[in-house]
Amino acid sequence: MARKNLQVLLANRPAGWVKESDFRIVETDIPAPADGQVLIRNHYLSLDPYMRGRMNDQRSYAAKVELGEVMTGETAGEVVESRNPRFQRGDTVAGRVGWQQYALSDGSDLRKVDARQVPLSAHLGVVGMPGVTAWVGLNDIGQPKPGETVVVSAASGAVGGVVGQLARMKDCRVVGVAGGPEKCEYVVKELGFDACIDHRAGNLPQALAAATPKGIDVYFENVGGPLLDAVLARCNPFARIPLCGMVSQYNAVDRYGVQNLMAAVGMRIKLQGFIVSDHLARWPEALKELTQGVRDGRIKYRESVTEGLENAPRAFIGMLKGENFGKQLVKLA
Amino acid sequence: MARKNLQVLLANRPAGWVKESDFRIVETDIPAPADGQVLIRNHYLSLDPYMRGRMNDQRSYAAKVELGEVMTGETAGEVVESRNPRFQRGDTVAGRVGWQQYALSDGSDLRKVDARQVPLSAHLGVVGMPGVTAWVGLNDIGQPKPGETVVVSAASGAVGGVVGQLARMKDCRVVGVAGGPEKCEYVVKELGFDACIDHRAGNLPQALAAATPKGIDVYFENVGGPLLDAVLARCNPFARIPLCGMVSQYNAVDRYGVQNLMAAVGMRIKLQGFIVSDHLARWPEALKELTQGVRDGRIKYRESVTEGLENAPRAFIGMLKGENFGKQLVKLA
Repeated sequence: MARKNLQVLLANRPAGWVKESDFRIVETDIPAPADGQVLIRNHYLSLDPYMRGRMNDQRSYAAKVELGEVMTGETAGEVVESRNPRFQRGDTVAGRVGWQQYALSDGSDLRKVDARQVPLSAHLGVVGMPGVTAWVGLNDIGQPKPGETVVVSAASGAVGGVVGQLARMKDCRVVGVAGGPEKCEYVVKELGFDACIDHRAGNLPQALAAATPKGIDVYFENVGGPLLDAVLARCNPFARIPLCGMVSQYNAVDRYGVQNLMAAVGMRIKLQGFIVSDHLARWPEALKELTQGVRDGRIKYRESVTEGLENAPRAFIGMLKGENFGKQLVKLA
Repeated sequence: MARKNLQVLLANRPAGWVKESDFRIVETDIPAPADGQVLIRNHYLSLDPYMRGRMNDQRSYAAKVELGEVMTGETAGEVVESRNPRFQRGDTVAGRVGWQQYALSDGSDLRKVDARQVPLSAHLGVVGMPGVTAWVGLNDIGQPKPGETVVVSAASGAVGGVVGQLARMKDCRVVGVAGGPEKCEYVVKELGFDACIDHRAGNLPQALAAATPKGIDVYFENVGGPLLDAVLARCNPFARIPLCGMVSQYNAVDRYGVQNLMAAVGMRIKLQGFIVSDHLARWPEALKELTQGVRDGRIKYRESVTEGLENAPRAFIGMLKGENFGKQLVKLA
């Protein structure tokens, strides 16, 4: 059986909405590990909004993907060959090795994960990068206190769902914002948020006011756009707004203009962008709490699994449009 | 000589641009102090952009001025009658006692000032509320480090001028933004900024890029509008943006929409609104440094003095339009 490696490359830099033709799927030989390296067979690929930024030819916090390069991304898989003393064949690992079935790594960007405590795929979500993103942004920037009101956008997503459940565990009033009644029902009934606003239903400012009678103390920003304006108008003094992402703007040609930023002066609001990879020292504590929360059932999660790497571009575009429901994954093996 | 007290009251809540007819000037009897009170004769009234917000019927960080009430504002003057053991007739004081020639105070909102070290009027500017605002916003939120680039809007104004000079003393590259060539020349030649951009000259993004070859680490925001977008596009990772005011938006009916806030995610930018009255514990250290800087000539300042309380409304409107040059004061006595 002549196995090959399937890879997804960046073929074009999108202008506006990303298209499937901006990617190219190629078949290459499975590489052999050099001394110090391991060969990983990826079981799951994580699709995350931040990847859209990596496709642009612009300065950003991390290197952009070059044309013709394998798309960047986190995977979870198993070590199938090891020439690195830290890893053994059969180890389950997560790391950022890209949109491909097999990958080499020197181990520096890999972490061993225990797929018996929680399923392997969850190490790309609730107990992986998105979960730690939620934990760091909420705790270190949002700093919610009992009784405060926390609002979370993209509330049914990989990050937003964790943010809200962590905030509930801190005895906050938690209001989600999500797209469509099905997601909103899930956010309230399954994840235990106090309320969820369907941003597609219109009247966002009124709905937000009704759901936040005591104003807003923390807003975890995943989406951007008009919702941020509506939130700014409801913020209490000294509100905190961790800026995690603005997925509504990633493919926009004409970006939305935020008009209520002036409220940040009078209300002494703090808006702060952050990236989870700046906070590596916080990962162990975050992962411990998140793992415990998943194991004892206090933190729930949901996955959208697409089969086959060749379908990753379509799933990625769908995720940017909000078509996924929960953490978007691609099953590779 | 039957002396009377001249007062400026809020007559209308402005919609859009404030007009002189939104104020009413009245003559009343000079009040007599009750036990525990002092009577102050105000020599100078300070006119500051924040007062525009107090004229609106909207929630803000401080109580709005009610219709028919004396306009709120800082003054510097002398105690002419005292029934408070902390004050003596002849003491020079600064406090927030409003747009009027004479005022009563129980002393809780007054501070004694030494008009021999620096002139009385300066206690409303460089060694008063605007100076401390600059000091707190720059040091506590901006946190500039040597070699960093600090950009300041309204750079020739009461706050901006101090921000830039303090940042220069910390060995930062300092770039001002001001309206017109005369103000820009003053900012560079008198205040010692490294560069100053005339925002009326057009091509703001290009001018900003040319003046900030190493990007922007701190932006002290006084103005808002398109400048903030241009700054966000030039910010370095972990840039800090103290939000002190947005004077360009105070009278706007259609507010400017900020489109580049997304940069705050990737660049981990912090934007934080603040109000100097939240930071009372910092006043003594700030005033000490500012007073020393003024006395040894390292901190310069400029005043725009309008004669007569009856001209305060016109001067206030002019200040909001940027017609003043340096700290706007009204001389009352």
